[in-house]
Amino acid sequence: MTTASPAYEGDNVFAKILKGEIPSEKLFEDAVALAIMDVMPQSKGHCLVIPKAPSRNILDASDATLQAVMPRVARLARAAKAAFAADGVRVAQFNEEPAGQTVFHLHFHVIPIYAGVELKRHAFGEVPMETIREHAEAIRRELAKT
Amino acid sequence: MTTASPAYEGDNVFAKILKGEIPSEKLFEDAVALAIMDVMPQSKGHCLVIPKAPSRNILDASDATLQAVMPRVARLARAAKAAFAADGVRVAQFNEEPAGQTVFHLHFHVIPIYAGVELKRHAFGEVPMETIREHAEAIRRELAKT
Repeated sequence: MTTASPAYEGDNVFAKILKGEIPSEKLFEDAVALAIMDVMPQSKGHCLVIPKAPSRNILDASDATLQAVMPRVARLARAAKAAFAADGVRVAQFNEEPAGQTVFHLHFHVIPIYAGVELKRHAFGEVPMETIREHAEAIRRELAKT
Repeated sequence: MTTASPAYEGDNVFAKILKGEIPSEKLFEDAVALAIMDVMPQSKGHCLVIPKAPSRNILDASDATLQAVMPRVARLARAAKAAFAADGVRVAQFNEEPAGQTVFHLHFHVIPIYAGVELKRHAFGEVPMETIREHAEAIRRELAKT
């Protein structure tokens, strides 16, 4: 590679969430990854899968991390779509700030899509925590079926 | 799951590309996946990773398919970023038509991002094949280094 990725920095928000230093609305957690609600959702049910292994983004992530996380992304995509009877789902993963990355710990966005409803801009405007919690509960109910 | 995914249909464009019935600008191919240029790129160097296993999208893909494909997506993301000295990369994967899926065979978009340059709309407007071929050659040169 001619362009190296900047180094991982351990003081990012997701590292703190993984350590339990910052609260989050958890959807599932296992040895590989944590799934949480995005608190600035682009759509109803927008959630995230965060691998526990420290990498900045896909550019420096190990193959093992990527292999382990993707079935979890798919599981969450299925649950989020079912929870809200969404018409589709987008999976998005941003690398470096110009691409929309705002937290420099690898994560995957799972964004339910509703026909005719425009997505909100990424990371603009918060939804009430009460609403986020209700949406999380709906996703957890679907996850419990799988 | 409460909402089943529609069944995979084998007559889609990517299935035909995988079978060699339709030409494509190949970046790499192995037992797991084929990587090609997107002929309606949203940015310079927009390319795709298409797993060979038949699945409609992430909603019906097997864990084995997802595990196998992601390191290849990462490899292509690194190469595409390096090939054009892009400022970032987006990885995007669309599930069902309302989410932007236009070909119903699982695939991952690798979209180089350039600071200050807006993305073109997905699947609108073609770029001259000569340009696509030049971009493919630049990505293949980077892939050859890895």
